[in-house]
Amino acid sequence: MTNYAPQAPTHKTKRAKIYWWLERPDREAAGPKRLEQALILLITLNVTAVVLETVDTIYAQWHSVFSIFEAISLCVFILEYLLRLWVAPEAEGAPSRWQWFRSPLAIIDLMAILPALLYLFVPIDLRMLRTFRMLRLLKLTRYSPALGMLMAVFEEEAGAFFAGLFILMLMLIFASSGAWLAEREAQPDAFGSIPQAMWWAVATLTTVGYGDVTPITVAGKVFGAVITVIGIGMAALPAGIIASGLNEQIHRRRASLERQFRNALNDGRICEKEATDIEAIRKQLGISRRTAENIRDTVYAETFAKMEETCPHCGEPWVQTRAD
Amino acid sequence: MTNYAPQAPTHKTKRAKIYWWLERPDREAAGPKRLEQALILLITLNVTAVVLETVDTIYAQWHSVFSIFEAISLCVFILEYLLRLWVAPEAEGAPSRWQWFRSPLAIIDLMAILPALLYLFVPIDLRMLRTFRMLRLLKLTRYSPALGMLMAVFEEEAGAFFAGLFILMLMLIFASSGAWLAEREAQPDAFGSIPQAMWWAVATLTTVGYGDVTPITVAGKVFGAVITVIGIGMAALPAGIIASGLNEQIHRRRASLERQFRNALNDGRICEKEATDIEAIRKQLGISRRTAENIRDTVYAETFAKMEETCPHCGEPWVQTRAD
Amino acid sequence: MTNYAPQAPTHKTKRAKIYWWLERPDREAAGPKRLEQALILLITLNVTAVVLETVDTIYAQWHSVFSIFEAISLCVFILEYLLRLWVAPEAEGAPSRWQWFRSPLAIIDLMAILPALLYLFVPIDLRMLRTFRMLRLLKLTRYSPALGMLMAVFEEEAGAFFAGLFILMLMLIFASSGAWLAEREAQPDAFGSIPQAMWWAVATLTTVGYGDVTPITVAGKVFGAVITVIGIGMAALPAGIIASGLNEQIHRRRASLERQFRNALNDGRICEKEATDIEAIRKQLGISRRTAENIRDTVYAETFAKMEETCPHCGEPWVQTRAD
Amino acid sequence: MTNYAPQAPTHKTKRAKIYWWLERPDREAAGPKRLEQALILLITLNVTAVVLETVDTIYAQWHSVFSIFEAISLCVFILEYLLRLWVAPEAEGAPSRWQWFRSPLAIIDLMAILPALLYLFVPIDLRMLRTFRMLRLLKLTRYSPALGMLMAVFEEEAGAFFAGLFILMLMLIFASSGAWLAEREAQPDAFGSIPQAMWWAVATLTTVGYGDVTPITVAGKVFGAVITVIGIGMAALPAGIIASGLNEQIHRRRASLERQFRNALNDGRICEKEATDIEAIRKQLGISRRTAENIRDTVYAETFAKMEETCPHCGEPWVQTRAD
Repeated sequence: MTNYAPQAPTHKTKRAKIYWWLERPDREAAGPKRLEQALILLITLNVTAVVLETVDTIYAQWHSVFSIFEAISLCVFILEYLLRLWVAPEAEGAPSRWQWFRSPLAIIDLMAILPALLYLFVPIDLRMLRTFRMLRLLKLTRYSPALGMLMAVFEEEAGAFFAGLFILMLMLIFASSGAWLAEREAQPDAFGSIPQAMWWAVATLTTVGYGDVTPITVAGKVFGAVITVIGIGMAALPAGIIASGLNEQIHRRRASLERQFRNALNDGRICEKEATDIEAIRKQLGISRRTAENIRDTVYAETFAKMEETCPHCGEPWVQTRAD
Repeated sequence: MTNYAPQAPTHKTKRAKIYWWLERPDREAAGPKRLEQALILLITLNVTAVVLETVDTIYAQWHSVFSIFEAISLCVFILEYLLRLWVAPEAEGAPSRWQWFRSPLAIIDLMAILPALLYLFVPIDLRMLRTFRMLRLLKLTRYSPALGMLMAVFEEEAGAFFAGLFILMLMLIFASSGAWLAEREAQPDAFGSIPQAMWWAVATLTTVGYGDVTPITVAGKVFGAVITVIGIGMAALPAGIIASGLNEQIHRRRASLERQFRNALNDGRICEKEATDIEAIRKQLGISRRTAENIRDTVYAETFAKMEETCPHCGEPWVQTRAD
Repeated sequence: MTNYAPQAPTHKTKRAKIYWWLERPDREAAGPKRLEQALILLITLNVTAVVLETVDTIYAQWHSVFSIFEAISLCVFILEYLLRLWVAPEAEGAPSRWQWFRSPLAIIDLMAILPALLYLFVPIDLRMLRTFRMLRLLKLTRYSPALGMLMAVFEEEAGAFFAGLFILMLMLIFASSGAWLAEREAQPDAFGSIPQAMWWAVATLTTVGYGDVTPITVAGKVFGAVITVIGIGMAALPAGIIASGLNEQIHRRRASLERQFRNALNDGRICEKEATDIEAIRKQLGISRRTAENIRDTVYAETFAKMEETCPHCGEPWVQTRAD
Repeated sequence: MTNYAPQAPTHKTKRAKIYWWLERPDREAAGPKRLEQALILLITLNVTAVVLETVDTIYAQWHSVFSIFEAISLCVFILEYLLRLWVAPEAEGAPSRWQWFRSPLAIIDLMAILPALLYLFVPIDLRMLRTFRMLRLLKLTRYSPALGMLMAVFEEEAGAFFAGLFILMLMLIFASSGAWLAEREAQPDAFGSIPQAMWWAVATLTTVGYGDVTPITVAGKVFGAVITVIGIGMAALPAGIIASGLNEQIHRRRASLERQFRNALNDGRICEKEATDIEAIRKQLGISRRTAENIRDTVYAETFAKMEETCPHCGEPWVQTRAD
């Protein structure tokens, strides 16, 4: 890690400074960190407000407070959006503002302000507006680096998830057809058609089991029991996929770090600069310090084992322990 | 990948051409892709139709539309079946039509048309017919390559799944016997015999928990609580088996690709033809591009580390690659 | 695999012959296989009979058939037990009959006959007798080799399972105390004491969720929601432990087989005898043929890579491809 | 393992002796083991007593027994606390009493006695007191070494768990908003506001599914079905994280032990002292004996394979081990 100077660095331009404050390229700086926390708090309060507004007694009493808070929040979010748009070219690779505008995080930010802005001009349904304000919650994704790994798992295992969903659909149609055949005369209200029977099938195959609708005929119960057992297999699929996907991610990240250690060690030692670089990569990969130490120890052990080998041509030890 | 010519290639025979359209040996060709999508849509519409027909109000009104749609679908599926049968020998290894006829996909295709055909000659129960038409859903398996990995897991871990099912059966009989002993006097309707008590036992051991039947005596509740705790273990078994099975599959596929990279790299570099071959194998194994890159990097790092090794004293290479 | 002679081998003694029939040391022999299947069928029918006897209408009608079937079954099981006791010393290592008598499988066999035998002399409760006859189900464990791996996982991970159970107990007492505090006045019947509240806590923490008892106060619902979320963690523990335990088992077995391949290959090729031995070990370890092939390919690739290395002293290739 | 002398060792000071009894540095000594078991029994009885006291009928009858038992327990726990405080400096590294006082285990011990002590002076609510006495359960964590691994998993994977919790919160707010929109008119009691609808959303997303509140409109059921399917994904997240976290832990511990074996073997054999050291490390890492043997065999096989290599042409060893 480079030495961190506690005071804010001097920036060449105002835009660079605002970029430094808003996008936090320097993760250790105290000021931007506090700004980030304030924004997180504001988003949380916004969502809480929308949730509480739906409680009639609370809304009746605090009504005007909610309105003022919404107005202030909207201003802050608009300002934030405009500033982020302005400073976008400061990012690494100097992307154009249009590129930033199309990025997922920018779209989320836009969705957080657009419906409320539209409302000023077009009278849309207030209920829909509330739902859209709920989307501000998505703004929090920016601040959760730990989400990255889970998202990567979902992305990479998308194929497996879709296959699992396909199997679920197949089982769902099979289960509701069977239940419809068995129960349609005994319970015409709940199993009168296959779409109706699907409510029971979904609750059963996912092991949720509300119990508001259950088979009552013997045939229905026997069939239901089989479906229930299959249900634990269905519910197991995503767990298995996520577990193996996370394993894969961790494995790959570990291999990346291992290569870094091996490269750094090929001259027999890890110099200070190399250690700093590896530390940065470790953080970026989200590998815990303890895991990193374990990888380093393994690479060390291998390298040192090699050091004891001697050249068959001249008999000298293979890797020179740093004479330089 | 070989360069793909946008226009359809010229085929020697008509049969070869139809094979090229129906079985899509060339995954990149645009025409066959659109045909495939049309077939997928038709299957989906078919299943949707069967589901909706069971809703009395819809059936009463659209009745004739459903009949016409079914007639058209049946013709398409029969034509598809006959064409696939005809072009079967075009496949790699030139299988006989009889071999294709016995293949799982062909049997599924036959099941999709046979009951409806039979109905023309023998008056079978319409309700059963509908259920059989539902089986057309299985035709979709042909188009989901991602299902392959999950199916491989189920196949390879079949032993573990059966052992799990055996444990479940054991626990089921144990749980229903205990509940019957404890509750048979308090609730003769729900726990009057062991088979009756099984309905509760299934719902509990699979953690579905409908709640339509629950123990009410103290002994029944204590016993039920123990069974409930065991239930989370039961529900965990398939998750564990799937997770470890998927891991195994991924591990094996990765090892396969690693060997390919190592072979390709043993002359110090990967030529264009080797890269194309490996890419094809990667796709066939269903390994993500990012994972493949990671494997390649690891193999590169190892190989180059070995190649660069020369004795620091006499300058001779550490490992001599065979002179020829 | 040694060549299997289809006719039964000639045994020196009658005892050896019966051992060969009952304990199936030769897994391929057809006669003993059919005997085993007959025994499995008899056990299954026995348990089915006990289950059906508890249905009053069936018992009233078939009453005498059940009695005769039980008498025959008992005779067969007693005969089986005595024969197994007699031939016990034929097993590998020539164990004493006393050693066999104390083995888990022998105890299960004894439990399957003892209660019914006792009943002939002492008039014990018929209901208890039925439950003991249910234990005959355990006799099936002898015939399920696939259970071995799961059992090994449970055995090795026993520590983790107990730690998980301890956490569950802790959470259970915590959850029921909290629910008791919140709901005891609103629902004195369901939450009047901590032991009573445990019924709700068990159903919630295991995600079974019967719904026969649910919190109704606001405090109870808020607390219940938190407990419910913790519940998915609780239910996840055994899944995680089983998944990682199975992984560990598979990893270890694979490493074992890999060592076998390496040893066999250290003279550059796998001779027929070595292949037979490895095949036997593969079956014993319960590794699938495809996994074994993958391991073999990996070991081959490594060994052949080595073959290309040349001796730095004389320049000759390292491993001689079998000139012998 | 060092030879264990069955009689208690002679200690230099009284404090050292009490430390030896209370903190069990020598895991094999019989006396301290029995003392530990007595303390575990006392804690268990204490918690059982608090649980039973809440049953009115039991409390009315045994009232005075509970009081006496509480008084005795309190004295024992106070004595235990004071003794542990006194002997704290005997521990490895000779920590100060203040350091011990702030350790998690010491805080748990303090919480087990403080509320009851306070009650002697300040009349606090008896109900709260009971709840605090429940915390004595936490004293058991000292005695469960198997908890360590699970706790390490929770600690290391904290980031992933928080990301999972964040996703759950997001889904929760999304699910309850949707259900509120769909059901608020049909069921104003259960879905009248978003906070109210959350009770259904929690039960559904965690697959608990009480069934006390379920959607009844068509829109609500369709939306509910989608949420239910997402629920199995939510419930799968912690299972996946725990499985992969445990795998990671096991992998790391295994790598640690492997390094120990490799180091010990680099002179061609494992001497008695080395074996003892490795055994101690194995226990500390919580690796099963069978896994350790597997690791040892793998390391042996690798090392011996290397050692045996001599060039078949000139007879020189392939890898020279350093002459010194």
